[in-house]
Amino acid sequence: MLKFPSGFIIGFSESGFQFEMGYPGFEDPNTDWWIWVHDQDNIMSGLVSGHLPENGPGYLALYKKDHDIAERLGADTLRIGIEWSRVFPRPTREIPVNIDKDEEGVIVSIDISEAAINQLREKADKNQVEKYKGLLKDWVSRGKKLIINLNHFTLPSWIHEPIQVRTRGVESAPSGWLSDETVVEFAKYAYYIVSELEEYADAWSTLNEPNAVATAGYLNTKSGFPPGIPSFEYTIRALRNQAIAHARAYDLIKQVTKKPVGIIYNFMWFEPLNPVNSEDVKAASTASYMYNYAFTDTLIHGESLLAASESLRRKLDWIGVNYYTRMVVAGEKKGPGWRYIPGYGFICTPGGVSKADRPCSEFGWEIYPEGLENILVELFNKYRIPLIVTENGIADSMDKHRSSYLITHLASTLKAVEKGVDVRGYLHWSLIDNYEWAMGFNMRFGLVKVDFDTKKRFLRPSALLFREISLRREIPEELFFM
Amino acid sequence: MLKFPSGFIIGFSESGFQFEMGYPGFEDPNTDWWIWVHDQDNIMSGLVSGHLPENGPGYLALYKKDHDIAERLGADTLRIGIEWSRVFPRPTREIPVNIDKDEEGVIVSIDISEAAINQLREKADKNQVEKYKGLLKDWVSRGKKLIINLNHFTLPSWIHEPIQVRTRGVESAPSGWLSDETVVEFAKYAYYIVSELEEYADAWSTLNEPNAVATAGYLNTKSGFPPGIPSFEYTIRALRNQAIAHARAYDLIKQVTKKPVGIIYNFMWFEPLNPVNSEDVKAASTASYMYNYAFTDTLIHGESLLAASESLRRKLDWIGVNYYTRMVVAGEKKGPGWRYIPGYGFICTPGGVSKADRPCSEFGWEIYPEGLENILVELFNKYRIPLIVTENGIADSMDKHRSSYLITHLASTLKAVEKGVDVRGYLHWSLIDNYEWAMGFNMRFGLVKVDFDTKKRFLRPSALLFREISLRREIPEELFFM
Amino acid sequence: MLKFPSGFIIGFSESGFQFEMGYPGFEDPNTDWWIWVHDQDNIMSGLVSGHLPENGPGYLALYKKDHDIAERLGADTLRIGIEWSRVFPRPTREIPVNIDKDEEGVIVSIDISEAAINQLREKADKNQVEKYKGLLKDWVSRGKKLIINLNHFTLPSWIHEPIQVRTRGVESAPSGWLSDETVVEFAKYAYYIVSELEEYADAWSTLNEPNAVATAGYLNTKSGFPPGIPSFEYTIRALRNQAIAHARAYDLIKQVTKKPVGIIYNFMWFEPLNPVNSEDVKAASTASYMYNYAFTDTLIHGESLLAASESLRRKLDWIGVNYYTRMVVAGEKKGPGWRYIPGYGFICTPGGVSKADRPCSEFGWEIYPEGLENILVELFNKYRIPLIVTENGIADSMDKHRSSYLITHLASTLKAVEKGVDVRGYLHWSLIDNYEWAMGFNMRFGLVKVDFDTKKRFLRPSALLFREISLRREIPEELFFM
Amino acid sequence: MLKFPSGFIIGFSESGFQFEMGYPGFEDPNTDWWIWVHDQDNIMSGLVSGHLPENGPGYLALYKKDHDIAERLGADTLRIGIEWSRVFPRPTREIPVNIDKDEEGVIVSIDISEAAINQLREKADKNQVEKYKGLLKDWVSRGKKLIINLNHFTLPSWIHEPIQVRTRGVESAPSGWLSDETVVEFAKYAYYIVSELEEYADAWSTLNEPNAVATAGYLNTKSGFPPGIPSFEYTIRALRNQAIAHARAYDLIKQVTKKPVGIIYNFMWFEPLNPVNSEDVKAASTASYMYNYAFTDTLIHGESLLAASESLRRKLDWIGVNYYTRMVVAGEKKGPGWRYIPGYGFICTPGGVSKADRPCSEFGWEIYPEGLENILVELFNKYRIPLIVTENGIADSMDKHRSSYLITHLASTLKAVEKGVDVRGYLHWSLIDNYEWAMGFNMRFGLVKVDFDTKKRFLRPSALLFREISLRREIPEELFFM
Repeated sequence: MLKFPSGFIIGFSESGFQFEMGYPGFEDPNTDWWIWVHDQDNIMSGLVSGHLPENGPGYLALYKKDHDIAERLGADTLRIGIEWSRVFPRPTREIPVNIDKDEEGVIVSIDISEAAINQLREKADKNQVEKYKGLLKDWVSRGKKLIINLNHFTLPSWIHEPIQVRTRGVESAPSGWLSDETVVEFAKYAYYIVSELEEYADAWSTLNEPNAVATAGYLNTKSGFPPGIPSFEYTIRALRNQAIAHARAYDLIKQVTKKPVGIIYNFMWFEPLNPVNSEDVKAASTASYMYNYAFTDTLIHGESLLAASESLRRKLDWIGVNYYTRMVVAGEKKGPGWRYIPGYGFICTPGGVSKADRPCSEFGWEIYPEGLENILVELFNKYRIPLIVTENGIADSMDKHRSSYLITHLASTLKAVEKGVDVRGYLHWSLIDNYEWAMGFNMRFGLVKVDFDTKKRFLRPSALLFREISLRREIPEELFFM
Repeated sequence: MLKFPSGFIIGFSESGFQFEMGYPGFEDPNTDWWIWVHDQDNIMSGLVSGHLPENGPGYLALYKKDHDIAERLGADTLRIGIEWSRVFPRPTREIPVNIDKDEEGVIVSIDISEAAINQLREKADKNQVEKYKGLLKDWVSRGKKLIINLNHFTLPSWIHEPIQVRTRGVESAPSGWLSDETVVEFAKYAYYIVSELEEYADAWSTLNEPNAVATAGYLNTKSGFPPGIPSFEYTIRALRNQAIAHARAYDLIKQVTKKPVGIIYNFMWFEPLNPVNSEDVKAASTASYMYNYAFTDTLIHGESLLAASESLRRKLDWIGVNYYTRMVVAGEKKGPGWRYIPGYGFICTPGGVSKADRPCSEFGWEIYPEGLENILVELFNKYRIPLIVTENGIADSMDKHRSSYLITHLASTLKAVEKGVDVRGYLHWSLIDNYEWAMGFNMRFGLVKVDFDTKKRFLRPSALLFREISLRREIPEELFFM
Repeated sequence: MLKFPSGFIIGFSESGFQFEMGYPGFEDPNTDWWIWVHDQDNIMSGLVSGHLPENGPGYLALYKKDHDIAERLGADTLRIGIEWSRVFPRPTREIPVNIDKDEEGVIVSIDISEAAINQLREKADKNQVEKYKGLLKDWVSRGKKLIINLNHFTLPSWIHEPIQVRTRGVESAPSGWLSDETVVEFAKYAYYIVSELEEYADAWSTLNEPNAVATAGYLNTKSGFPPGIPSFEYTIRALRNQAIAHARAYDLIKQVTKKPVGIIYNFMWFEPLNPVNSEDVKAASTASYMYNYAFTDTLIHGESLLAASESLRRKLDWIGVNYYTRMVVAGEKKGPGWRYIPGYGFICTPGGVSKADRPCSEFGWEIYPEGLENILVELFNKYRIPLIVTENGIADSMDKHRSSYLITHLASTLKAVEKGVDVRGYLHWSLIDNYEWAMGFNMRFGLVKVDFDTKKRFLRPSALLFREISLRREIPEELFFM
Repeated sequence: MLKFPSGFIIGFSESGFQFEMGYPGFEDPNTDWWIWVHDQDNIMSGLVSGHLPENGPGYLALYKKDHDIAERLGADTLRIGIEWSRVFPRPTREIPVNIDKDEEGVIVSIDISEAAINQLREKADKNQVEKYKGLLKDWVSRGKKLIINLNHFTLPSWIHEPIQVRTRGVESAPSGWLSDETVVEFAKYAYYIVSELEEYADAWSTLNEPNAVATAGYLNTKSGFPPGIPSFEYTIRALRNQAIAHARAYDLIKQVTKKPVGIIYNFMWFEPLNPVNSEDVKAASTASYMYNYAFTDTLIHGESLLAASESLRRKLDWIGVNYYTRMVVAGEKKGPGWRYIPGYGFICTPGGVSKADRPCSEFGWEIYPEGLENILVELFNKYRIPLIVTENGIADSMDKHRSSYLITHLASTLKAVEKGVDVRGYLHWSLIDNYEWAMGFNMRFGLVKVDFDTKKRFLRPSALLFREISLRREIPEELFFM
């Protein structure tokens, strides 16, 4: 039996782009991702699914209903995302701020004047802000907790236009996180939105999975993320700029609120193919540093391979851990020093079985709960700051594996707690089916199925299990059926 | 939304041999099946699993605990089985009864004198009868309903010794349902046990799946059922004798009780491979008559290819429907007029997908819920007597498909009700994992997992779904996640 | 490059029952196997395929054509089988011989008088003997070599009636190798046929795979061999009687000819699941003794677990090695001391891949050529007598793996030769598709495809490879494409 | 039995980039593809295999050996490719020619002066030209036939720099077939090389698979072809420019030689998913026009959706048909009017089975020989010009399917001949394993295996089949084993 510690939060994570749309009048066409998934060349080339986000679950219209379900299932906390593009559909770059850069090009400080704040307020789309307030109020008025994340993948199209980037080159089009400008504009947006929504949130996060944005956009281009230009240099630049953006947003947010400000990050657990082969062990360690720790080291120690600046130090009050599976790596003389081994972790046959004889999701992701416990322990031993599991779930339309996935990963979380790790909660990805980026509606992560034609919700059996666990605030022994 | 009709019963089915043993002192070594699964030649040849029933779930010791679980899951009814061999471990054949046979060899009546009844009472193992009473009392004292089935596959070894049958021939050893004697002894046993347990039962069944006993034992010998001798002649003889045994037991039971007496039967839904090919259509119809209806016609109309005798007519007050999947058949000039098509129904790859792209259980059985509705409608249109779904379930250790199996098959049942079919209830097979005959512990049918080493019980997620449905007495629309 | 040693023979193996029939007038209904595969109960129960041997390739009618093909493909040797039932369709038991038994029941000598020989000659079906002579003459007149095998699975139905054995018990019907009588009658037949055909053969074999006859008939009953009665005792008895039958036949044959007399035997290469686990290693050794060596030890050393008698010693001039794949075993406390591990050797998914990532035949047999070299080396080190690979081939209708199977197994044979093993030749199973016992025409072992409707022959590509190799009398390096 | 018609050519096709390199001193680093497959970002992102062409089969060094093998296998014809980048590693654009354009921008004529010709001759790398002459001479001096193709995918890097295109945009870097300039420079190269090598060739082709270049480079970007920028507009532009380039090259070549000048093109056979659904039928027809016929219509009729100009008419003396498999399409309102159905044709599981139960190659390409006959018939009925099957083969390292692939596709070709189609020959792809573009050495198309470490050649069994057929100049009935 694994009991929830006192104060342990339980609930769901959601983002903007993937959940909000679904009803006429709720579309947001002002993002890089909107352009990207509507681009006929992308659709014809198979880079994206051809499914469209405006046919999504419609959370922005149906939030009362979804909050009802979340409450029935015993959730006490939601993590939701605000869309920058809804708040500022037009450029904010003419609103002046004072910027300092060091000799390495790191923006070390941003000052916003009162006048600038007023300009931001005027520029913001009040209508959209009110919609968000309505949604947030509905949840917190139920006595529930809320974490607000400021950016989840999508960028306003005035700051990132991926099709132009592709045809004209990165230097001739708004290039998103490749550009310094994005750092500054994000800080303005962050400052403004925290000012507006401060009362609703229990904790803040600036960015969701900056490493996924960088690697899927600039390295693993088969994933179908914008702008799909393979470049190790761009990958690093995008990571670095997001780290700086976080630091500057952190500073500004802290002028408004004392609540904890953190980041939500994608962690993978790296394992050597052969644990007694020193090349493989080293490869796993290198890969883990690059993927998991270069970014967080930057914002904790102010120093990493991405950047070194006192201005980046101690900028995380908490870390949100998004965990799905592991990666198995072997040493490799060429390239970055490692290679991924297909048949494990993220690189398995959809609906098949991994080389370790474990079932794999419809996304082809191996079920590997040990990795979550391991990464929580490792992370806490490194940084000693509070952690929250902010995403964890499985693409499983028929709910074949979700119950065992849920139990074993929640158990991993609670076992980490038992070992002294300061994990404050577990937010499942996700309450309802949603728009899974380039895969569209092909990947179903919901405890609750959505019929995207009728917008009806249906409880998958794992939702009953979630309820049983969240209401009892433990995983009773009798539920370990695996 | 599919509501339970008023009075609709919901619960579980259990048998004796598969559930009772598991603790020292509870073994019953006096059956054909005990001999069969312990036979070293059978084990070495792979006909049986090598797993042993004395390592089973231990229901006869743990019934209070299992009844607690059943109650928590919302069950209002159990169907349990009494083991003939426990009640009469030694032969009863010397206890005289009066028998009439017609010229076709059908035993048309059996009279038991008061003296014979006393002898039966003396011969019966009181200790075992008391154990059963304890178990039954525990359930009915909770205000629950009970169906008692008198024979579930196993025969006392003094009436069927399958290894001797195999080595010496059927004429030189106790040959079970191939012998007239078994008809008479079964009637005695039935009369006696109903007299003893009358107060506990709400309804009675004589035999469970007489067609499975006949076909698995004498035709589909790869199934590993005793005595494993392929013979169409024996198949028919075993069926016929079971029909007569039922009729004679029916008559005697009715002298003791007014409660409904029926039979529990294995039904398959037969479909033509090509529905516009008349040969295939005819093949499906022939196969269905042979498998589904020859036996029941005997006991309803008193006439079938098995036998014709007024003494066999109107002997069913209700029919228990055990349904697992369909069979797809094609016309075939050779043999009985049809052949089964692999890749559908019972003949699929374990854990794979059928030719119709449907998932298959760990037993290799296709999930085909339509068949249950179809068979209920067809059966009721033919006979117009009450039906109960007495078995329905899936071998699925990791609970990948059980939830959708449960919902869709229960929905099929309720849709039949909506069409006017008199279905009185649904009993899932099964509450807990048990001993699956020749497959031993390899096939897991439980909503509740059993750890056979520790005898611990664990709820599979589908158990929560069962509870949700049985307590709400409906399948709410929101649970149709499939 | 692996060259054939001087005198190395290359060619094909054939049997009677599987090849001869196919044209009206060539049927032989007087065997246990004919009865067995025509039995409707066997067909309905799925024990046998329902295919019938009278629709076979028709070798007894088309032998000139098949010999033409064999010659074109470079074969210099055939091994063919004579059907006992063709020669003696009626019992020979009334023809008297003198028999001596020792106290263990071993028949230690059989004497045939001149009178008895004359009676045998009269009793024999001259017509059938002439047919065989025609076939043999056609081959040897091409300047080719011939090995004649006297018994290949089938027994005359007057000596084995498997359906009666099943229904009446082994003691009440002609029980084949379970009976002493079969030893005596086989010796008579052997003596007679060698007298008749002596001039054609270069070497003789008495029995083909006595171990397959015993284990498939009395242990692995799912294989569909007659009589399909699981019994370890019968398995041992059948093995022992075949060993004695060989010895007595050997003695009589040696009165007629000086040519080498041997036996053809099925060998498997046994490997421990975990080679550093001593239980597994011991299990592999025990299993190998039981399957591979108990029988041959009897006939070489006159002593084994089957029997001990000076009369059985030194009765093998050569051993024919039939090899298809390995078996992987683990230690097991219960039963005979080992268990077979599915996923290796003979227990793989048809057309799939083994747990060792090797392709498997349509029979589900892993391709494992190392085993052939190993068994040849082990066998020769044990007995130091000449060996011939008398069967080796693959069920592969589309010829996906046959070429690599052929090269690697022939290479294994030649590597054994390089190590000093006295292997005299390699006979592939088989030249043409034939009747694969209980599997009927479902398993295609031919280098040459047979269309069983038209009896046409088609060269599979591997036939061209066989020709290339047999004509060059080497496996040139350039053919190692695997 | 299918006989070769008189004069029917049989042999192999080869290209430059995929075959030439393998030995030090034979590298050609001056192509777009060299840059592309060496690019670290491409390798890290998994767009290309990481295998390198300089480790290829080494045909430019080993041609005598490979020609020996080709001759032994009965080939009478080779199609080889000349690398533009070897002949002109530096730009030729400063060598002046006279160009006429029409109002649509079509270059309708190119005139080369004597002076320009001399400049080309000086600019050309004589050393490389001599190497080619040596290779060609070796083949034709054996009395064999030769088809020379001028361009097979690769472009000199001075005319196409795909990494720069990707990072700077197509307008800011040498953009290959997106640029008019490429048309002009290709014409110069074509004129020059034909002048030099005229004596060796029996027929000429300008381009290989211009449609693959366009669609893989600009549409199906997951194929890993340069520059990997999805754009329907670019796809069309690349196609159009290649058509014009062919026409202008054709004119110039015809000033030098009277030998037939054609094009080698990739054809797919398109089938409607549901042949009685008119939307699907129309979709198949539209897709076929777009993929198969828009380009060839341009060069036969001078009019198509690509361009309309008298200057493009009647520019094909013959068409080379590269055929691998079909595509199954369904009607689709969105996009171009059709969608491809996975599970058929090019979109199957590698090494699996298609939805039509046909085996698929290691590339995931369904084996569908009917399509080749169909496309030959359709093409000839449309254009009435000579055809040659210039590529046809299968990625099949273990030679599981190559023999049946070869027979059935060659049979399709000969059946088309029987129907009156003017097919002049069949060139298999390929003699030896080679460098399969983005897949590197992962895909093995050779009748002859290459060990890329040692450069040794090994005959796969299908090579023996090829020899049997090519030497007999027929497919004898006895080889139809499928």
